[in-house]
Amino acid sequence: MKVTSKQIAEICGVTRGTVDRALNNRPGISAETRQKIMKVAEELGYRPHFLAQSLVKGETKTLGIVLFDIHNRIFSQLFHSFEAEARKQGYFIYLVLSNKDKELEIEYINSLLDRKVDGIALSPINKGTKFESFLNRSNVPILSFGNRLSARFPFVWIDDKQAIKEAVSHIVSRGYRTFIYVSPPLRNKGKENIYVPEQRHKGFLEACKALTDIRYHVITDRDYLMTIKRLVNEAEDKPAILCSSDIYALDILRFLKTHKIRVPEHVGVMGFDNIDILNYVNPPLTTIDFNVDEIGRRSAELLIENIKGKDIPLRTNVGYTIIDRDSL
Amino acid sequence: MKVTSKQIAEICGVTRGTVDRALNNRPGISAETRQKIMKVAEELGYRPHFLAQSLVKGETKTLGIVLFDIHNRIFSQLFHSFEAEARKQGYFIYLVLSNKDKELEIEYINSLLDRKVDGIALSPINKGTKFESFLNRSNVPILSFGNRLSARFPFVWIDDKQAIKEAVSHIVSRGYRTFIYVSPPLRNKGKENIYVPEQRHKGFLEACKALTDIRYHVITDRDYLMTIKRLVNEAEDKPAILCSSDIYALDILRFLKTHKIRVPEHVGVMGFDNIDILNYVNPPLTTIDFNVDEIGRRSAELLIENIKGKDIPLRTNVGYTIIDRDSL
Repeated sequence: MKVTSKQIAEICGVTRGTVDRALNNRPGISAETRQKIMKVAEELGYRPHFLAQSLVKGETKTLGIVLFDIHNRIFSQLFHSFEAEARKQGYFIYLVLSNKDKELEIEYINSLLDRKVDGIALSPINKGTKFESFLNRSNVPILSFGNRLSARFPFVWIDDKQAIKEAVSHIVSRGYRTFIYVSPPLRNKGKENIYVPEQRHKGFLEACKALTDIRYHVITDRDYLMTIKRLVNEAEDKPAILCSSDIYALDILRFLKTHKIRVPEHVGVMGFDNIDILNYVNPPLTTIDFNVDEIGRRSAELLIENIKGKDIPLRTNVGYTIIDRDSL
Repeated sequence: MKVTSKQIAEICGVTRGTVDRALNNRPGISAETRQKIMKVAEELGYRPHFLAQSLVKGETKTLGIVLFDIHNRIFSQLFHSFEAEARKQGYFIYLVLSNKDKELEIEYINSLLDRKVDGIALSPINKGTKFESFLNRSNVPILSFGNRLSARFPFVWIDDKQAIKEAVSHIVSRGYRTFIYVSPPLRNKGKENIYVPEQRHKGFLEACKALTDIRYHVITDRDYLMTIKRLVNEAEDKPAILCSSDIYALDILRFLKTHKIRVPEHVGVMGFDNIDILNYVNPPLTTIDFNVDEIGRRSAELLIENIKGKDIPLRTNVGYTIIDRDSL
């Protein structure tokens, strides 16, 4: 049964106006009356007409967040910190997953707009002017992390290019001169938004070019394992496999173990992301850690500031660190 | 700028009634006119007043799902299959995370009800009659998985008790007679909903009682590692550590490795859940796999049937299998 403010007024022996004052936390009534009304409202399970109020107020205190998926731990961690910050500020979150499907991403953004979200944070799989005018027509603040839109949209992430450059220096300092760079998403260049893999790839190439006496291969195949085996066998000196994400490095470690190729005795391996399951992997994987909790928290914070009409920076970088373990 | 059906009518040179017919897919206009209107509507980025329509229709085509968190892979997998099934049927999902906080769970369920979800699927952390009358007052179909409510609420899960009994038989068939059962959530008995850990614990006790010449310890400490070390050192014959979830088994494998206690040479270990990161763990962990995708899919399917007024079973069990690897 639907409870109305009229019923609460009758039970408390006050007018509906008094009940409204109490429920909307407006002045003009005694603390005692307010307390009595709130108690009755709670006992009856009274909930105001949230949707109707939203239509009138033009705000729903709701944010949308669009992720590829939550299988990748980076995104489940990011969601947790985004949600915690938004909740602290009184916002509710709608999470939708594009599954890296460009049409589904648009369909879901439309669903969020239908539900009148106050703002959207997304890791986009679409890109280009058509997609951006679609986002602009939404008339709500939009922010991205992970993949980037054009410079008109605020972006919260890390400096991927610089991070990979430091990874290359680190590997070289360990005596390696032959690199195998693994980044399967690069094969989707031109087909979808692969900003992050592209930045990491650029950083890798720039770092190699700045050095002398370096040999490298870049692998973008989906089935990268057989190619790696061939390259490792053919290499004249011990190669280092640098992966654009830990998920590939984990796959490679497992593959090398099956083929009795020892890490780091026969080949070095380094990842990127420091996903939490690395805690359980042997040999412990050298990788780059970045503060993904901070990316989630800052994204929520900045998006809410933007909703409230404040200017926010178009680029926010969080820090990263090389985590030196035993795989090099 | 907000696009209205009036503007579309003007551009197409038709009446607003014709536009409404096209947009709501009603008969009475030619295919050609319909196509023209749809094209203009799309180009202008027209979106109907979804929230206002929802208030009138009394349905939002939206389901709420309440999980503890998405750190545990079981729940991120379950969410993916729940979402995919719901989307197939034209429903949108709101995901909220209780973080195992009883008050937050209630706050979030209220937020979902404020947003007029058509139904809620939850893995509850609250339990008891007060919580259930709160759920009943919502007047929307509610279904649970993971932890169970009372028998009045439909429940989709596995037969945990039977599964653990089979795990015990499997371990015994490998020659073990000493068990260490690890289930830290049991220490919250009476404080929160721990239906799944309780069922698994009951199954363990019943299985042990049905056998002769069996010794066992049950560990419910949060810091279970030191207790395990002591028990392993004191054991007269090689013990098997049976964990109520893989997450504890992973922790234990790592701890044993650090202390040079070899698995399965010095001690056996078995998990429960078959979370996907087991693919990267050494030694490969024997565990129980259950079809979590099927739980997600069936939960969405049944909840939607219930919303549409159909009776649904109060208990739905999916299958499980023992995955025999190298840790016993």
